[in-house]
Amino acid sequence: MDFYSKFVKRREKLNSLLCVGIDPDIAKLPPSLEKVPDKLYVFSKEIVDATAEYAVAYKPNIAFFEAFGSKGIEQFEKLISHIKTNHPEIPIVADAKRGDLDNTARQYAKFFFKELGVDSLTLSPYMGSDTIKPFIEDDSRMVFLLCLTSNPDSAELQQKTFSETGRTLYREVAALSEKFPVKNVGLVVGATHPKELLEIRKAHPDRIFLIPGYGAQGASLEEVISVCGKNSLVNSSRSIIFSSSGPDFAEGARKAAASVSEQMRKLLV
Amino acid sequence: MDFYSKFVKRREKLNSLLCVGIDPDIAKLPPSLEKVPDKLYVFSKEIVDATAEYAVAYKPNIAFFEAFGSKGIEQFEKLISHIKTNHPEIPIVADAKRGDLDNTARQYAKFFFKELGVDSLTLSPYMGSDTIKPFIEDDSRMVFLLCLTSNPDSAELQQKTFSETGRTLYREVAALSEKFPVKNVGLVVGATHPKELLEIRKAHPDRIFLIPGYGAQGASLEEVISVCGKNSLVNSSRSIIFSSSGPDFAEGARKAAASVSEQMRKLLV
Repeated sequence: MDFYSKFVKRREKLNSLLCVGIDPDIAKLPPSLEKVPDKLYVFSKEIVDATAEYAVAYKPNIAFFEAFGSKGIEQFEKLISHIKTNHPEIPIVADAKRGDLDNTARQYAKFFFKELGVDSLTLSPYMGSDTIKPFIEDDSRMVFLLCLTSNPDSAELQQKTFSETGRTLYREVAALSEKFPVKNVGLVVGATHPKELLEIRKAHPDRIFLIPGYGAQGASLEEVISVCGKNSLVNSSRSIIFSSSGPDFAEGARKAAASVSEQMRKLLV
Repeated sequence: MDFYSKFVKRREKLNSLLCVGIDPDIAKLPPSLEKVPDKLYVFSKEIVDATAEYAVAYKPNIAFFEAFGSKGIEQFEKLISHIKTNHPEIPIVADAKRGDLDNTARQYAKFFFKELGVDSLTLSPYMGSDTIKPFIEDDSRMVFLLCLTSNPDSAELQQKTFSETGRTLYREVAALSEKFPVKNVGLVVGATHPKELLEIRKAHPDRIFLIPGYGAQGASLEEVISVCGKNSLVNSSRSIIFSSSGPDFAEGARKAAASVSEQMRKLLV
């Protein structure tokens, strides 16, 4: 099944937009896992199994695995295989922020979509359309283009305005996404920019947004959902996966995911 | 030794700017390697050993290894280790085009600079300065920011002009590089844009440029060198590494590298 259908089906079933971000930062793993071999995999798998009833999607970030080279990537492969085997109904967005010339892009597409078989991938749009197309030649696949990111220095380039179109760079990327079907290209828009979130949503009502960074410095969950509506995946990473640092970390993650899901259900009524 | 010193030393010794791009596209490997296990590594290693006397730097692109997942990354690790052990004087630019939030960027930095120990890395600048800084906390390291890339659709975003500064996006990235020392941040500028190459060089005379795409559709080697001068690494990949598809592929690469080097030496007099 394609990413888009999987996403819609899951969203309707759970009445939720929760994307669980799997960022197994080695410095933050529970001390109880210290001597466990393959601890990135073990931690992530436990989190996945504990939160599966609440996850509309999973977004594992490959950087936390790539930090350990081929040994880390091996654990990433095991994690993806575990999710696909045990929770095949939950779509996977690999957070990798790749982007390269067409033939090179095809190599990345081969890994993520053929070897691993994830449903979706985050991409950097800097190089333009011909570096995006190779990823969606198989049109069951979805990519999310970085549009307006949640970090402070995102303003440096993304919030400047092009004189040719009167659009900011992030709006230009959003406009570029309209060259492609909604089911193939979505946008990453950080909840740290509530005003811009509304602006982008108004211009692109049907695009799927992947929204990191709600709470803390940015928009509240309520604000994000009222602005962005149902064509969204609202990501939560640390507040779920590192909810407890004890040996009960998986149970802590389950409770945190349950609590966010409950809030989402109420807001989506 | 830091990247910058290694580069300068090597450039002066060889009187050349040749960066050999290692892009072992599986579809183009010599048939003689068909049954060789670890053929990405074997091919790349042979190319490296055959061209080492002419290479000012090597630029292996990790995508061609990542295409095969952890097994591919293992071969990438072996290749980097081989270069560092046997040709320690030749700096390595890992072509990866990464870019992510600060803590996540730190994970990529850990892999490339600590685990692998390459000297330099290509990055996408889309997310801004706070996503670049983690890579150069160790100030012996160098990153090359994508500035004006060689693909046709690079114009879509990169060649539009910001009304706030009157600069194109690619010039804005070049301006952003000036926040950092020359020895830590360089620019990727495709030779497919000769006019813009001159414009960027005039504004940034001391930055190190990494220049792919000369010949074919773009500027000639002569033009690139006369415009960009010595603070440049001029990349050649396919025309060297796939010079011969026979069992003599390494000798073919050696001859191709020797020929480009000879041209460069004449142009640099």
